[in-house]
Amino acid sequence: MSRSIRLAVIPGDGIGQEVVAQGLKVLSAVLPQDVKLETKKYDLGAQRWHATGDTLPDEELAALKEHDAILLGAIGDPSVPSGVLERGLLLKLRFAFDHFVNLRPSKLFPNTATPLAGRPEIDFVVVREGTEGPYTGNGGSLRTGTPAEVATEVSVNTAYGVERVVRDAFERANARPRKKLTLVHKNNVLVYAGHMWKKIFDKVGAEYPEVTTDYLHVDAATIFFVTQPERFDVIVTDNLFGDILTDLAAAVTGGIGLAASGNINPTGEFPSMFEPVHGSAPDIAGTGKADPTATILSVALLLRHLGLDAEAIRIEEAVAADLEARDGAARTTDEIGDALAARVAG
Amino acid sequence: MSRSIRLAVIPGDGIGQEVVAQGLKVLSAVLPQDVKLETKKYDLGAQRWHATGDTLPDEELAALKEHDAILLGAIGDPSVPSGVLERGLLLKLRFAFDHFVNLRPSKLFPNTATPLAGRPEIDFVVVREGTEGPYTGNGGSLRTGTPAEVATEVSVNTAYGVERVVRDAFERANARPRKKLTLVHKNNVLVYAGHMWKKIFDKVGAEYPEVTTDYLHVDAATIFFVTQPERFDVIVTDNLFGDILTDLAAAVTGGIGLAASGNINPTGEFPSMFEPVHGSAPDIAGTGKADPTATILSVALLLRHLGLDAEAIRIEEAVAADLEARDGAARTTDEIGDALAARVAG
Ligand SMILES: CC(C)[C@H](C(=O)O)[C@@H](O)C(=O)O
Ligand SMILES: CC(C)[C@H](C(=O)O)[C@@H](O)C(=O)O
Repeated sequence: MSRSIRLAVIPGDGIGQEVVAQGLKVLSAVLPQDVKLETKKYDLGAQRWHATGDTLPDEELAALKEHDAILLGAIGDPSVPSGVLERGLLLKLRFAFDHFVNLRPSKLFPNTATPLAGRPEIDFVVVREGTEGPYTGNGGSLRTGTPAEVATEVSVNTAYGVERVVRDAFERANARPRKKLTLVHKNNVLVYAGHMWKKIFDKVGAEYPEVTTDYLHVDAATIFFVTQPERFDVIVTDNLFGDILTDLAAAVTGGIGLAASGNINPTGEFPSMFEPVHGSAPDIAGTGKADPTATILSVALLLRHLGLDAEAIRIEEAVAADLEARDGAARTTDEIGDALAARVAG
Repeated sequence: MSRSIRLAVIPGDGIGQEVVAQGLKVLSAVLPQDVKLETKKYDLGAQRWHATGDTLPDEELAALKEHDAILLGAIGDPSVPSGVLERGLLLKLRFAFDHFVNLRPSKLFPNTATPLAGRPEIDFVVVREGTEGPYTGNGGSLRTGTPAEVATEVSVNTAYGVERVVRDAFERANARPRKKLTLVHKNNVLVYAGHMWKKIFDKVGAEYPEVTTDYLHVDAATIFFVTQPERFDVIVTDNLFGDILTDLAAAVTGGIGLAASGNINPTGEFPSMFEPVHGSAPDIAGTGKADPTATILSVALLLRHLGLDAEAIRIEEAVAADLEARDGAARTTDEIGDALAARVAG
């Protein structure tokens, strides 16, 4: 039997290029001999948009669909109006490929700096809904640019969309030792969406008697993220709250340089996409200062999604060991990639 | 000349009762002899709702309107369905009295515990829009309770509403030594509302050349709240982002026990309302464990709003001195109130 991974690679903008190169380096190093890796690069992002006006043409979307998975670096550049690439490329991929589980683990690794005093134990996973909420692009603007302008943003939530992500989160919580799931929403204000989320959460929860559940308003959740992050195991939340909470989670666990994510279509109908939580950081692009660890940990999520659990664990253990061995000396993007490639190969 | 303050008092639920009593104690102690304080209590909240089904009847709303200001403790109880009192009472007041500036200062006082390592200097003010955004109650639910349910929440934003709060924030920034104003939104995803906010922010900013401005996405802002809170001076943001950010701000500046807020109608057409950021905390109600400092600092905001700046400063200095003098021994709600009343009187 021979196995192969057809991987689409979208390096994107800024440091995206650099970190993806290291992700691929580690991926090649970790894969067993019998797994063939076929990568195809897609030139998408700010440069392409400036050159052609394209964000994500239909042919490329169709071509991307044929891959087993997608590795993405980062999208966005100050030279492009805010929203053009986000909506036209990144979110378009998440929506077109029905990435309804946006998976974002947060772990405080040994020997990493956290802004929190006392170094609490942090090891939780946010399951962020990825295809609904305020991210659907519904809304509009009336009398744009006049003093009488009205702009709306519509958060769209369906029982279908909420139930499938809540179910996924219960499955994940059930598979973890602590078996705890927290729903985060704002159901005292966003009563329509919030009550639907809560009802579905309670209904699905009845099928998982071993999972302990609780509910937090999003504002209260941010408090616990800094005062008691150890209380969290799995969190399920809506698209926007998940966006906010996972940046905060990244900050308290040593920074956005370590935060990995997977945009997952659990049914397998479409390829899932893996990307660091950080952006394109144009200010440090080309300086070798970008930390590729978040991308490399995203590669681990990718491998686990494809059933290569042992290889995913090898990467995660390599990252933990690498961080533990750090002596505080600055390393370049390339050096970190080399060190991790050596560890996973060894 | 004789002066008087006609103050409406809504103690509300849980610890609301206890902290408001201390707020009034300190208020009486700080007021000059020639200022007469007339208080009237309004029995609103969970008990009233259970007894009568009322949240905020029209007659009481009309009566409240006749006051110079409102002091509110906390609203909410687990025995009341989530949203009933929030929408029917607290938000109803904010909307009816056009409290478009929700003012929330954050300061790390000496000798208070912050979860942040290294005790950064924190002294910023969040100007949260209070009458628009996802808080308007627009939205609905279709096929409620069925697997085909669709629930929407509509964020409504007007140029009128955004410009007035942005202008207020520029005024506040301009009056502070650092003269810096940060707009927080999510204009790469919420493009309709986000672009309108940004355009208006830039337009008004042109009238304040001495104010340094910048823009942050809300997710990135949460990172800076924990890694670099000293970068902030004044922040202006939408209703929901402001809700989330101010709880996080309270957490990093020593907790929700110290966070004050004012729901301000700057035109003076309606009474402004002052309340601690914390909730009713039913778990500690009646135990004497509630910290009344947030309410007492809210009283300082109330006094400043009424033009009694010297008295506001006396309270703020008393709180700083009281915190500095703490020896770590636990004090009851009443003891903290007594200590602060003694300081402002002395
Ligand atoms: C770039 C932006 C559209 C994106 C999001 O809001 O989802 C990013 O912040 C993220 O968290 O992946
Ligand atoms: C109780 C709730 C409706 C309220 C809000 O969301 O505004 C509270 O969280 C606050 O910040 O004052």
